[in-house]
Amino acid sequence: MKKPKFEPSQAVLSGETADIYFARTVEILRYEGLNPVATMEIFTSGAGMLCGIEEVRALLAKVLPEDNREVWALAEGETMDKKEVVLRITAPYQSYGLYETAMIGILAHCSGWATAARECVAVARGIPIISFGVRHVHPSVAGVMDYSAIIGGCTGCSGIVGASLAGIEPSGTMPHALIIVMGDTVKATLAFDKYMPPEVPRVSLVDTFKDEPEESLRVAKALEGKLDSVRLDTPGERGRVTADLVKEVRVRLDLAGFNKVKIFVSGGLDPERITYFLESGALVDGFGVGSYISGAKPIDFTADLHEIEGKPIAKRGRIPGITPSPRLKRVM
Amino acid sequence: MKKPKFEPSQAVLSGETADIYFARTVEILRYEGLNPVATMEIFTSGAGMLCGIEEVRALLAKVLPEDNREVWALAEGETMDKKEVVLRITAPYQSYGLYETAMIGILAHCSGWATAARECVAVARGIPIISFGVRHVHPSVAGVMDYSAIIGGCTGCSGIVGASLAGIEPSGTMPHALIIVMGDTVKATLAFDKYMPPEVPRVSLVDTFKDEPEESLRVAKALEGKLDSVRLDTPGERGRVTADLVKEVRVRLDLAGFNKVKIFVSGGLDPERITYFLESGALVDGFGVGSYISGAKPIDFTADLHEIEGKPIAKRGRIPGITPSPRLKRVM
Amino acid sequence: MKKPKFEPSQAVLSGETADIYFARTVEILRYEGLNPVATMEIFTSGAGMLCGIEEVRALLAKVLPEDNREVWALAEGETMDKKEVVLRITAPYQSYGLYETAMIGILAHCSGWATAARECVAVARGIPIISFGVRHVHPSVAGVMDYSAIIGGCTGCSGIVGASLAGIEPSGTMPHALIIVMGDTVKATLAFDKYMPPEVPRVSLVDTFKDEPEESLRVAKALEGKLDSVRLDTPGERGRVTADLVKEVRVRLDLAGFNKVKIFVSGGLDPERITYFLESGALVDGFGVGSYISGAKPIDFTADLHEIEGKPIAKRGRIPGITPSPRLKRVM
Amino acid sequence: MKKPKFEPSQAVLSGETADIYFARTVEILRYEGLNPVATMEIFTSGAGMLCGIEEVRALLAKVLPEDNREVWALAEGETMDKKEVVLRITAPYQSYGLYETAMIGILAHCSGWATAARECVAVARGIPIISFGVRHVHPSVAGVMDYSAIIGGCTGCSGIVGASLAGIEPSGTMPHALIIVMGDTVKATLAFDKYMPPEVPRVSLVDTFKDEPEESLRVAKALEGKLDSVRLDTPGERGRVTADLVKEVRVRLDLAGFNKVKIFVSGGLDPERITYFLESGALVDGFGVGSYISGAKPIDFTADLHEIEGKPIAKRGRIPGITPSPRLKRVM
Amino acid sequence: MKKPKFEPSQAVLSGETADIYFARTVEILRYEGLNPVATMEIFTSGAGMLCGIEEVRALLAKVLPEDNREVWALAEGETMDKKEVVLRITAPYQSYGLYETAMIGILAHCSGWATAARECVAVARGIPIISFGVRHVHPSVAGVMDYSAIIGGCTGCSGIVGASLAGIEPSGTMPHALIIVMGDTVKATLAFDKYMPPEVPRVSLVDTFKDEPEESLRVAKALEGKLDSVRLDTPGERGRVTADLVKEVRVRLDLAGFNKVKIFVSGGLDPERITYFLESGALVDGFGVGSYISGAKPIDFTADLHEIEGKPIAKRGRIPGITPSPRLKRVM
Amino acid sequence: MKKPKFEPSQAVLSGETADIYFARTVEILRYEGLNPVATMEIFTSGAGMLCGIEEVRALLAKVLPEDNREVWALAEGETMDKKEVVLRITAPYQSYGLYETAMIGILAHCSGWATAARECVAVARGIPIISFGVRHVHPSVAGVMDYSAIIGGCTGCSGIVGASLAGIEPSGTMPHALIIVMGDTVKATLAFDKYMPPEVPRVSLVDTFKDEPEESLRVAKALEGKLDSVRLDTPGERGRVTADLVKEVRVRLDLAGFNKVKIFVSGGLDPERITYFLESGALVDGFGVGSYISGAKPIDFTADLHEIEGKPIAKRGRIPGITPSPRLKRVM
Repeated sequence: MKKPKFEPSQAVLSGETADIYFARTVEILRYEGLNPVATMEIFTSGAGMLCGIEEVRALLAKVLPEDNREVWALAEGETMDKKEVVLRITAPYQSYGLYETAMIGILAHCSGWATAARECVAVARGIPIISFGVRHVHPSVAGVMDYSAIIGGCTGCSGIVGASLAGIEPSGTMPHALIIVMGDTVKATLAFDKYMPPEVPRVSLVDTFKDEPEESLRVAKALEGKLDSVRLDTPGERGRVTADLVKEVRVRLDLAGFNKVKIFVSGGLDPERITYFLESGALVDGFGVGSYISGAKPIDFTADLHEIEGKPIAKRGRIPGITPSPRLKRVM
Repeated sequence: MKKPKFEPSQAVLSGETADIYFARTVEILRYEGLNPVATMEIFTSGAGMLCGIEEVRALLAKVLPEDNREVWALAEGETMDKKEVVLRITAPYQSYGLYETAMIGILAHCSGWATAARECVAVARGIPIISFGVRHVHPSVAGVMDYSAIIGGCTGCSGIVGASLAGIEPSGTMPHALIIVMGDTVKATLAFDKYMPPEVPRVSLVDTFKDEPEESLRVAKALEGKLDSVRLDTPGERGRVTADLVKEVRVRLDLAGFNKVKIFVSGGLDPERITYFLESGALVDGFGVGSYISGAKPIDFTADLHEIEGKPIAKRGRIPGITPSPRLKRVM
Repeated sequence: MKKPKFEPSQAVLSGETADIYFARTVEILRYEGLNPVATMEIFTSGAGMLCGIEEVRALLAKVLPEDNREVWALAEGETMDKKEVVLRITAPYQSYGLYETAMIGILAHCSGWATAARECVAVARGIPIISFGVRHVHPSVAGVMDYSAIIGGCTGCSGIVGASLAGIEPSGTMPHALIIVMGDTVKATLAFDKYMPPEVPRVSLVDTFKDEPEESLRVAKALEGKLDSVRLDTPGERGRVTADLVKEVRVRLDLAGFNKVKIFVSGGLDPERITYFLESGALVDGFGVGSYISGAKPIDFTADLHEIEGKPIAKRGRIPGITPSPRLKRVM
Repeated sequence: MKKPKFEPSQAVLSGETADIYFARTVEILRYEGLNPVATMEIFTSGAGMLCGIEEVRALLAKVLPEDNREVWALAEGETMDKKEVVLRITAPYQSYGLYETAMIGILAHCSGWATAARECVAVARGIPIISFGVRHVHPSVAGVMDYSAIIGGCTGCSGIVGASLAGIEPSGTMPHALIIVMGDTVKATLAFDKYMPPEVPRVSLVDTFKDEPEESLRVAKALEGKLDSVRLDTPGERGRVTADLVKEVRVRLDLAGFNKVKIFVSGGLDPERITYFLESGALVDGFGVGSYISGAKPIDFTADLHEIEGKPIAKRGRIPGITPSPRLKRVM
Repeated sequence: MKKPKFEPSQAVLSGETADIYFARTVEILRYEGLNPVATMEIFTSGAGMLCGIEEVRALLAKVLPEDNREVWALAEGETMDKKEVVLRITAPYQSYGLYETAMIGILAHCSGWATAARECVAVARGIPIISFGVRHVHPSVAGVMDYSAIIGGCTGCSGIVGASLAGIEPSGTMPHALIIVMGDTVKATLAFDKYMPPEVPRVSLVDTFKDEPEESLRVAKALEGKLDSVRLDTPGERGRVTADLVKEVRVRLDLAGFNKVKIFVSGGLDPERITYFLESGALVDGFGVGSYISGAKPIDFTADLHEIEGKPIAKRGRIPGITPSPRLKRVM
Repeated sequence: MKKPKFEPSQAVLSGETADIYFARTVEILRYEGLNPVATMEIFTSGAGMLCGIEEVRALLAKVLPEDNREVWALAEGETMDKKEVVLRITAPYQSYGLYETAMIGILAHCSGWATAARECVAVARGIPIISFGVRHVHPSVAGVMDYSAIIGGCTGCSGIVGASLAGIEPSGTMPHALIIVMGDTVKATLAFDKYMPPEVPRVSLVDTFKDEPEESLRVAKALEGKLDSVRLDTPGERGRVTADLVKEVRVRLDLAGFNKVKIFVSGGLDPERITYFLESGALVDGFGVGSYISGAKPIDFTADLHEIEGKPIAKRGRIPGITPSPRLKRVM
């Protein structure tokens, strides 16, 4: 994955996406003529994987005065402990005070997604995980969600914009809709094969109209060696995808000579369910994970001022002065 | 609140935010010359409040052919049962197939936020709830999040763009940062009073440097009758805000003659905590709710084709044909 | 159901099935010339439905002296409370002491089965329940098990000997084995239809080779109106039988005009699962219950002597003298 | 224990104890002239100890054609894993199809009993366990239950027929009834001693009329050295048998010079309670276990066809073809 | 019960039993010449029954200046809510500051005992409860403990000093020691009968050497109509006292004509166990409760100053000024 | 700590604090002329630390005949196992029978307190624990409670009489009352410093009127180096004392140069809360523990006669004869 290029939007730069009280604060300080060099630290409320820091950095690069700024941070994708400081900014307060809302919002949402992805990858023993959850978030964050999932270790994503942000090709099979519109799985798979460029793997979805092993054999036979994988996405009404089903499809494909056809599983996956497949001995070749990643709760971050013009200060309940954090690197 | 004006973004219209397989499906069908009139139903996986349907409708109005479309839906803010159909589209499949991802993503995220807001409002016995959670989501959804919270019953929000979308004024007090930069709560509150327009209520944050009752009396005296409210946002290290604290601040303000000064509470609020305050008898005048609303898990939606050219059909596990839903109204 | 005719076996009459210590007790008392009129009471350790009392009565009728006996009992199929006395025998001790083991063994096992059957019937809202569990007990008790299930309210049983004991016709569809041997469900059902007498209902088992709705339509069409029911017995590897599956099979049969074909469900049923089907609104026409009934734990019974020659006596922990029990009827 | 001689009963051979649908299946196949060589595998639903296989073998030896059969099985008393195949039959289907019910019924019931017995033996650290539960099952299975308990590791049983089946002498003390009829424990024990052959151990039941230590000393003194054991079977109303009671009886017997008299415990025993006695340090010389063994739930078995005329086949959810099972031995 | 006469001890009056810091506080204030009229309120941390207030009043009567004091209190034995004020003192601070430790200590311990007693009495449906717990507390509080138990509703106590304090006769039967020293329960009971004055009820303890029903009949016969009660105190090693045991003793006494002999139960009683007896239908004539009452946790009380020279004041966390408490009565 | 001098009170010696039945027992035995040498053993119902044995010994030394007594015991402060014998007395029964109540009452109460203190000390990693709970017990046991706490490992106590009994100086800071009467923490602390002897450490209570860090700095500055410690006793309404608060006070004191001022914590402490502080890394210099120690439930003790004139005897449920106890030492 090559480095993404984040560009702060006009809505963020204008302060439109901020809490109103930060806009007022900056206004008051301007009237008062107060613009001290202030040190702000941002720490996380929970452990996990940091994500979004690149987007925050792009914002700070735009707004902080080049000759009076010092920024220390953890890197995109680093793990972070509960309460750990991940970012420290020292600069004239007016230059960045307005962006507190945006900065901690970006970190909260992206770190939540990356951490959930990481949890899936951590149990998958190297079997690829594809982010399939763009359908459960607002399209305005479709890109950053998939990007965060890839930072968290997913090898692909089904969303076009996220794949582009991460610099990879989007992954995907076919939806039930195609099969229903065409009326038959074999027919739909043949059409897919006919029109799609050769580099797109032929993956057929085999739970739409018939029992999965029966349908798997039908498409495997019809594609005459070109079938890359079957995808199992069996609905709950038919018992969802189980390890026993995967095993049986595997044996029946093998008995018919299709031992090169892979099996891809999706539907309600999370780390517990992935572990269940792996511990059962079922041979799954890839997992598609949806709302476990895309619906992950954001990890709250908090920003605190710790020095004003070099003097330690803090609100009640916080420790005045710079928090020692040897893991931070200077980035600006 | 006046009706918001949603306008589909170019990223959505271009299909960039879609799952890749929908793009491919539409492409294949075009090659095949297949564009049947298809009926798609979208149902919810969980009970709650529907939100986002206005934004979806704006999208459909743009893409469906005016002379061959029929759309039935529940209204923005209606409650929905588990598994209930909330939207039914009948139109040529190629005109809308690409937007399945965006449509159910909008509904999932917005309904999740609105439902969480509704849960808070439902227990608050009429005491106003302000959405304070914009700082815990990515700025790209700051607006729709606050808008959804207001659909859910919040009377205000701290985010500027969400307030604008909902057609109201943003609400806010002052951050700890202003007080720390100015070095004293009284000084900061006097500056706020000096520069802010008269229609902005004077709300002082009283937990930064001193014990809350002591600070409350200091600002009340300094503002000479102009103080609207104090806000309590005590950190966990000082015992967070408790009902006892609210009661004591109330009595001490009253004993000093400030019985018109209101008390506003924020920090870690959720329906259980709001109920605790109300059952304790503490007189709270407003609650600021953050990540309980903004970090709410999206409510997954599913789209199914149920008729092709007027013939009942369905994938395994679903019932073929139109699902009877007397609550749906024709909207297009 | 007409009254069954129980006949004590030679193994029971000879004392061969008894605990050795009762054989010794009777021997010692004979040597001592002791044969007092003794009153024994048998009570249950748990609440439930009494069953087996008819078989016990047939035994007592054979062994107690006609001119010196008094027997009081609850009737077959009556409910009994925890610790309730269900049988009281007054007769010379030597005439019945040897049969304590057999008497309480019969009551324990039969009452256990009848009580479990009753629990299923109690929740089934009038929908017929068939005892399908003979395959999970030793064939020596196949008959009494099914008989007890019918006392408990089952309307039929699959076992031949139990049906005969209860004076009814055995119920049954076809096993997976027939379909596998014949290679196709439609073929097996047509053969069944060809050779079985007309009074045997045509019930086809539709989960062997194909998805159930597809197979249901195939057999319904092939039998041209003669199909009585389909039976769903889907294995766990395919998600077992669910309410959603029943509903979908019902709709697809109805859409194809087979609204007279009934749906029969089996596989892992118990009161909780039966309730689940009924509360879901799925229209099930009959349930086949197996090991919940046949594997029911026997309900332990205890026999105590309470009078010797008319004098109250009891072991430590029991109350001397006759236990007042107005529900007992004199039966001998 | 010498090898028991099982002989299939007429009721089993005639198919009377079968499910009606197997009778019908065989009838249909005869009409159709279908009698393929079929391979059936029987597997267990749960882990435990296999029992009943000898009885099943005796049945198969009677019904399978000697020149066209192949039977592989685990041995009586072997442990089996969950889902493990315990029996594989290859023979013309008509010769054995009718006996599926009886075969899996025998295995289910006997394996349930043996497994429960094994669980008790496993925790008893070599202290003998006697099966005392014949009184809680129907007399028709009294023999096979006690036989199974002995396969499970019990060193004796109280039932006469089970002991005979297992080729051992039945074990037993005396019932409360003997003592109550004779009016005194000492009197009853002396009579027992007077009439029973010398090889029968003198075991007195000491909880009928008096406190156990007092009664133990009375019988020990009265039998002048001939007392083998006392049995404690204290009812719940007197606190059941506890480790403290065993210890006190032991000390009081020892203080009076009866250190050779053993202590035997019965009443509500199961593995947990046996463990409690052993961990407490109480010196128990034998345990009598009743309904934990005899009321054990049968372990369900399932029979599946896996080959027809040498071709792999299976119903949905099962793997076609022979299941590899290196532990099976060819027995026929 | 007549009003007890409490007299503060020299140890309390001298301040010897106080926390050192109160002694120092009074010393400092004297040096400073500070002796303002101060209002102290004492409130309880938990709900229950107030006890000890009479002893506190006796102390205050001794130390407060008669011409400058105002004391309001709840009465001995009144119920109190959690956090309720039970005592308010207005007087020169130096006159009572030293006694804060003693006052809240007396209330804590006595209210704890009285509340526990009350809980037993509340479930006993009028059956007398005797305080038997003096053996589980230090003899220095034997008197106040039993006194508190009687305030809580006990009808008697076994301790001599507590009975005297409460103005009643102590209640008691005989200990196991008397029976063991005399070697036989009947002998011990006859000796008791011979030497004790006629007004002392003859209550025999019947679980020392023999089974309780047997011993009960022996003493009842030996005392020829003079036996008032038997007491059951069976140890855990013999199953403690159960409802079944009480019922059996009752029946056996009645069958032998001793229906006037009462049954008294002791040993590990608490409200749950008392309820168990009453719900079982066992006819108990009296309960002896030990450590549930005497080992009750003290209920902490807290003393706070709320006015100094008539001006509201309070420490952080408490409400300044007099707490409105209409239930308080002026007692001084 | 030097050895305390216990002197039995007249109330104990006279038998006034005894259960009435012991008084009667001794009276009956006197009338009967029975005074056998009897061996009584006292054992504990629960594990813990033995305390009170010195006070019991002082009593026995006074009442047992010097020429006919043998007493074996564990030592003050030794640990004891559940059911372990802690005291064995052999002497004429009349000499000590009356004191059973007092002896086991002393042991129960004192061992309960010492055990609770020990539990706190065990987790405190050497940080001093002061007994602060005299305010939660009746003043009559104020001394023995604090004495027991010190036996349990506390390094000091706030009660004057207990400190005197244990031969140490009482520990204490100042109460909220002093500060409220004087109107300001700094003023109160200066007065304390002015009048108290120099050897009393200057410990200021800093949570009365202002936020703790602010008040800590005020008193530290005012006392100009003479401040020994601050005590944090924050009420629940302000979040009680937390590890974060301790850390912040420490940092703010250090930043201002007061790194020698210690921090002392009190309020609702128990082993779990002490552990929480230590595991958090907060630097606490001393803990004041109140009702966890003083409100500890007494540990019940039981006295049993095991020999009469050298012959083993016991009540039902207990083992006759001397219990082997190698840990007992002869003390008389």
